[in-house]
Amino acid sequence: MANSKYEYVKAFEQPDILLPNTWIVVRIDGRGFHKLSDRYAFKKPNDRRALDLMNAAAVEVLKDLSDLVIAYGVSDEYSFVFHPTCDLFDRRSAKLVTTIVSTFTAHYIYQWGNYFQDTPLQSPYLPSFDGRAVMYPTTKNMRDYMSWRQVDCHINNLYNTTFWTMVLQGGMSNTDAERELKGTVSADKNEILFKMFGINYNNEDEMLKKGSVVFRQYQLEEVKSDPKTVQGQEEEGTSVPEKVSKSQQEKIRRLRRKAQVVVEHVDIIKDDFWQQRPWILSGKPGKLPVRA
Amino acid sequence: MANSKYEYVKAFEQPDILLPNTWIVVRIDGRGFHKLSDRYAFKKPNDRRALDLMNAAAVEVLKDLSDLVIAYGVSDEYSFVFHPTCDLFDRRSAKLVTTIVSTFTAHYIYQWGNYFQDTPLQSPYLPSFDGRAVMYPTTKNMRDYMSWRQVDCHINNLYNTTFWTMVLQGGMSNTDAERELKGTVSADKNEILFKMFGINYNNEDEMLKKGSVVFRQYQLEEVKSDPKTVQGQEEEGTSVPEKVSKSQQEKIRRLRRKAQVVVEHVDIIKDDFWQQRPWILSGKPGKLPVRA
Amino acid sequence: MANSKYEYVKAFEQPDILLPNTWIVVRIDGRGFHKLSDRYAFKKPNDRRALDLMNAAAVEVLKDLSDLVIAYGVSDEYSFVFHPTCDLFDRRSAKLVTTIVSTFTAHYIYQWGNYFQDTPLQSPYLPSFDGRAVMYPTTKNMRDYMSWRQVDCHINNLYNTTFWTMVLQGGMSNTDAERELKGTVSADKNEILFKMFGINYNNEDEMLKKGSVVFRQYQLEEVKSDPKTVQGQEEEGTSVPEKVSKSQQEKIRRLRRKAQVVVEHVDIIKDDFWQQRPWILSGKPGKLPVRA
Amino acid sequence: MANSKYEYVKAFEQPDILLPNTWIVVRIDGRGFHKLSDRYAFKKPNDRRALDLMNAAAVEVLKDLSDLVIAYGVSDEYSFVFHPTCDLFDRRSAKLVTTIVSTFTAHYIYQWGNYFQDTPLQSPYLPSFDGRAVMYPTTKNMRDYMSWRQVDCHINNLYNTTFWTMVLQGGMSNTDAERELKGTVSADKNEILFKMFGINYNNEDEMLKKGSVVFRQYQLEEVKSDPKTVQGQEEEGTSVPEKVSKSQQEKIRRLRRKAQVVVEHVDIIKDDFWQQRPWILSGKPGKLPVRA
Repeated sequence: MANSKYEYVKAFEQPDILLPNTWIVVRIDGRGFHKLSDRYAFKKPNDRRALDLMNAAAVEVLKDLSDLVIAYGVSDEYSFVFHPTCDLFDRRSAKLVTTIVSTFTAHYIYQWGNYFQDTPLQSPYLPSFDGRAVMYPTTKNMRDYMSWRQVDCHINNLYNTTFWTMVLQGGMSNTDAERELKGTVSADKNEILFKMFGINYNNEDEMLKKGSVVFRQYQLEEVKSDPKTVQGQEEEGTSVPEKVSKSQQEKIRRLRRKAQVVVEHVDIIKDDFWQQRPWILSGKPGKLPVRA
Repeated sequence: MANSKYEYVKAFEQPDILLPNTWIVVRIDGRGFHKLSDRYAFKKPNDRRALDLMNAAAVEVLKDLSDLVIAYGVSDEYSFVFHPTCDLFDRRSAKLVTTIVSTFTAHYIYQWGNYFQDTPLQSPYLPSFDGRAVMYPTTKNMRDYMSWRQVDCHINNLYNTTFWTMVLQGGMSNTDAERELKGTVSADKNEILFKMFGINYNNEDEMLKKGSVVFRQYQLEEVKSDPKTVQGQEEEGTSVPEKVSKSQQEKIRRLRRKAQVVVEHVDIIKDDFWQQRPWILSGKPGKLPVRA
Repeated sequence: MANSKYEYVKAFEQPDILLPNTWIVVRIDGRGFHKLSDRYAFKKPNDRRALDLMNAAAVEVLKDLSDLVIAYGVSDEYSFVFHPTCDLFDRRSAKLVTTIVSTFTAHYIYQWGNYFQDTPLQSPYLPSFDGRAVMYPTTKNMRDYMSWRQVDCHINNLYNTTFWTMVLQGGMSNTDAERELKGTVSADKNEILFKMFGINYNNEDEMLKKGSVVFRQYQLEEVKSDPKTVQGQEEEGTSVPEKVSKSQQEKIRRLRRKAQVVVEHVDIIKDDFWQQRPWILSGKPGKLPVRA
Repeated sequence: MANSKYEYVKAFEQPDILLPNTWIVVRIDGRGFHKLSDRYAFKKPNDRRALDLMNAAAVEVLKDLSDLVIAYGVSDEYSFVFHPTCDLFDRRSAKLVTTIVSTFTAHYIYQWGNYFQDTPLQSPYLPSFDGRAVMYPTTKNMRDYMSWRQVDCHINNLYNTTFWTMVLQGGMSNTDAERELKGTVSADKNEILFKMFGINYNNEDEMLKKGSVVFRQYQLEEVKSDPKTVQGQEEEGTSVPEKVSKSQQEKIRRLRRKAQVVVEHVDIIKDDFWQQRPWILSGKPGKLPVRA
C-alpha cells in the first residue's frame, strides 16, 4: 500500500530557519510555577533546592548540546545561548527550542528526588516549561540581553528579600508589606533590611543576588586593560561568515565535551567576565585547565 | 536601579502567531530513540511497555490541555490536534509546541518506572522529544494528515513484524531479511508471515496495526448514511469566525475536563470514526455517557 | 574569477511561502493619496477619473495574472484574490505581492494621461502603492473579507457624500460639517442628504456606493434556491488537496485568458453574486458566453 | 451600519517585522526582461538607455526614501540598503519592499520616454519589477552581499561583451560563440577580445564593468591607513541599540534630503569606497560639500 495519496500534507510544514550569523537565545520559563511552588511548599522568598535543581538540569542541557556557549538562570527561568556560527539542526527554531525544553524537563523531573527528598512529585501536578527563541544580531545585543536578565534578578531578589523579611520576620501582612514597599528604590529597601532587621543585603547568597551562570570551564585569560578587547573578540567571533565544515564542527564539539560545565554566581554585566573567558564570545574551545 | 537601559532587547522577540481558523497539529518525535531503545533493551519489533508509556504520557497531555481534541501516536511519535477555534496562548506557536513537549516529557520520565520496572533510567541518557506545529486549513487536510500517519503505521508495522519474525524466528541475518523484503508489497509480506511462520497478520495486536487514538469520550452518535454528514459538521465547526468569548471558552474547558480521556486502537481513515464522535470535528463537548 | 567567496550571503534569504490551500488576498493601498489628491486636484468626495484609472489598472493586473479570480476596489485601495489551489511563484509572498504592486503601478502611471488629460504627472510626485498578502483558510473567511471592504465602502461613501455636500453645497466649514456628523448613523445621513439637499442617496452612482468588482466573465448560472449551494461549491473548490499538475495549470491559464475581464458595481455580500458565477469560488474556468 | 460583523478578518493579517539592528537589503529584479528587451529592441550586450533609466529611477527612490543609505544596480536588478538603525514603517517587510518596488516602477514608466524617445511603451507589455527583503546581521555580511553583486556584474559583463562581440563583430552564430566560451576563465575572454577584436576590456565603460552605485554625496574623508577603520565605523554604527527618537530621525531625514544623490561606477569591494564615505556605514549624515 503506497502512502502517496496522503503525503501531500507534508507540504504544509513551513520552514522556521533562524537567520544565520545571529546569536540565538532560547529562554525557558516554568509553567504555572507560582501555583506549583505552593503545592510543593517552596520556601519564600527563595528555595535553594528549587534553584539547585534548575541549575542541575541546565548543566545537563549544556553537556548534551555542546553547541551552547553559555546559559543564565534565575528563579524559574533559564536562558541558553547558541553562538552565531552554530548550525545545529540547520538552525531550525522549533527543533532547537523543543530539544532544550524537553531535555531540561527530563532532567528536572528525573533529579527532583535528589533535591526534594521529602516532597515527592504528585501526578498530574508535574513541573513543565515553555520556551521560545530570540535572535540577537550583535554581541552587544546578546550581552545586553544577559545584562537585562541579571539586572532583573537583582531587582526582583532585593524586593522579594525585603518583602518576605517584613512578612516572615516583621510579622506584617502581605498587603501591608506591599504598600510599604510601593515606590521605594533600592537604597530604601537596603535601609529597611538593615535598620529594621539588621540584614546587610550585600551578605546575602551570591546565587540569589547574581543568578547562575553556566558555561564550559577552560583556563582563564588575564584581563587586558585595553577596553577594545571584548569588541575585538566579537569581530573575530562573528565576522567569519563562511560555514564551518561539518568535520570541523564535530571536532569542536568533541573538544567542548572534554571541558567541565560549571555553575558560577558572578557579574556578567561588566566586561571582566567575558574578557577572562574569550571562548564564550569566540565560540572556539579554550585551553583545558592544567590539573595538578 | 531601573532596568530600562537593557529592556530594548525585548523588541527582538518576533511574533509567531498561527493563522486563525486553521487546525493546528503539534507533532513530537523521540530524540535518538534508535540508540535509546538499544540502551534500555526495547523489545523488537515493538515494545509494549514503551508504547503504553507513550500513551500514558499522551493521555496526561490531553487532560492538561483541554483545548486538544484528539491525538494519534505510533512508535516514538505523537501528533496532538488543536481545533481551528482554539485560542490557547493566543495561538503562539512556540508556546503551544513547547508546552506539549515539556508536559509529555515530564509524564514520560515520571511514569517510566511504572512501565519499565526492571530497567531504571540512567542519567544522562534520558528520553527527550522534539516537536513542531503545522497548520491545516480544512478538515479534509487535517484528516488526511491523520490518515497519512495511520497508513505509515501500517506500512512500518507490517514491515517490522515480517523483518523481525524472519530474524528472530527464522534465524536470518538482518542483511538477509532486508534483502529478502526489498521490493515486496503488502501481500508478499502477509504471505511470508503466513506461509513461513503461520502468522496471520490480521490477528496481530490492534495497537500495533492501528496505532493509538486518544480523545475525550462522550456518547457515540449513530452513523448516518448521508455521506455529507462529516462535511456538514466541518462547516458547523469551522465556519464560526467570531472569536469565542473568554468566558465561553472557560465553560467549554470545564465541560471537557469532565469527560474521560480514552485510548483506542481504531481506524481513523474512514468516516465512521469521525461521524460517531462529532465533538472532535465540531470542537464542542458532546453528551457525557450515562453511567449505569 | 569565481564568485564563491561571497555567495554564502544567499543563505540569508528566508523563505516566505504562503500556507497551501488558503485563499490569498493581496491588498494594495495608495501611498499618501491624501496629499496626492490635493496636488492633482481630485474632485471631492469622489473623482470619477481617479476611480476609472484604478479600475483600468486592476483590469490589466487580472489580465496579466490569470491566477487571480477576483478583485475588489474602492477609493485608493484594491484587493486581489488568488484561489486556494493557486501555485503561482510557488506561493512566495513577496513575489506575489510585488508583482501585483508593480504591474498595477506601471499601468496606473502609463494610463494616467488617458484619464487626467489636463493634469499631467509632475515628477517626483508620482502615485505609488504599497501592498501585503493575507491568507484566509475558508471561503467564508475570504467572502467576509470582501464583505468587510464593501461595507467599508458604503460607510465611507455615505459619510463623504454627506460631508462634502454639506461643505460644497451647504457652505458649511469642514469643522462644522464634521461636528454635525459626529455620532450620526446611516439613517441620519440619508435624512440630511434628502431633507437639506434633496438628494436620494440610493440614486447615487453604483460605483461609488458599491465599489468595483473585477473578474473574468463567463455565462452566468441560474441561482438555485438551495441555500447550501455556495458552501457546496466551497467544498468542491477547496477540498481538492492534490497539486494540480503544471500542464493542467497551464491549460487552465490559457482558458482563463480567453475570458473577458469585466468591471461591475454590484453587491458581493449576498450569495447571489457568487452563485451566479461559480467559477470564482471553484477556480475552474466557466463556459464562455455565446456571442450573437 | 456597523462593520463589526466582518472586521474579525483583520486578525488574519500576520506581522512581518524585520529583526531590529540588521541591515535590510531590498533587491528588485525586472520581470521577464529577457522578452521585454527583445520587444523594445534593447541593444546587445548592453543598452545604455535602459541602464540610464534604471539609474534614474533608483535615484528617485533614494530621494524619496531618505532612510536608504546606498543602492547598487546592474542589468535589470537593483539592491537598496537600509541601515540597521532604520525604523521606517516599523521595519514591516512587505511595506518596505512594495514601497520601493512601486516607486521604482512609477519613475521607470514615467521616464521611459526620456530614454527611449523613439520606442514608446506598448500596453499591455509594460516593464514591471518584483522584489524581496533580506536581512544581514553585520556590516561584513552586507558588504559581502554588495561585493557578490559587483563580482557578478563583472563576470556577466565580461562574458556578454565577449559573446556579443564574437556574434556581432565576428559573425559567429550564438551556438558557436556559446560553445567557444564554455569553460573559459576571465583571462581567456580578455585574450579573445584583445587578440581577435583588438578590444582592451579595461577600456570598456566603467558603468558596464562596475555597475552603478547610488548614494548621498557629502565631503569625502581621507582614507586612513589603519585597516581597522572600517570595522571601527561599523561598531559605532550598529552597536547603538537604543531606538533613535522620532524627532531625531526626522532631523536626520531632513539633513539627508539636503545632500545630492549621485550615481558612480566605482569599486565597492575594497575598503576605500566605504572609508571615504563613512556616512554610509554610520548612517549619520556627513558634511555637505563646500560649494565654490
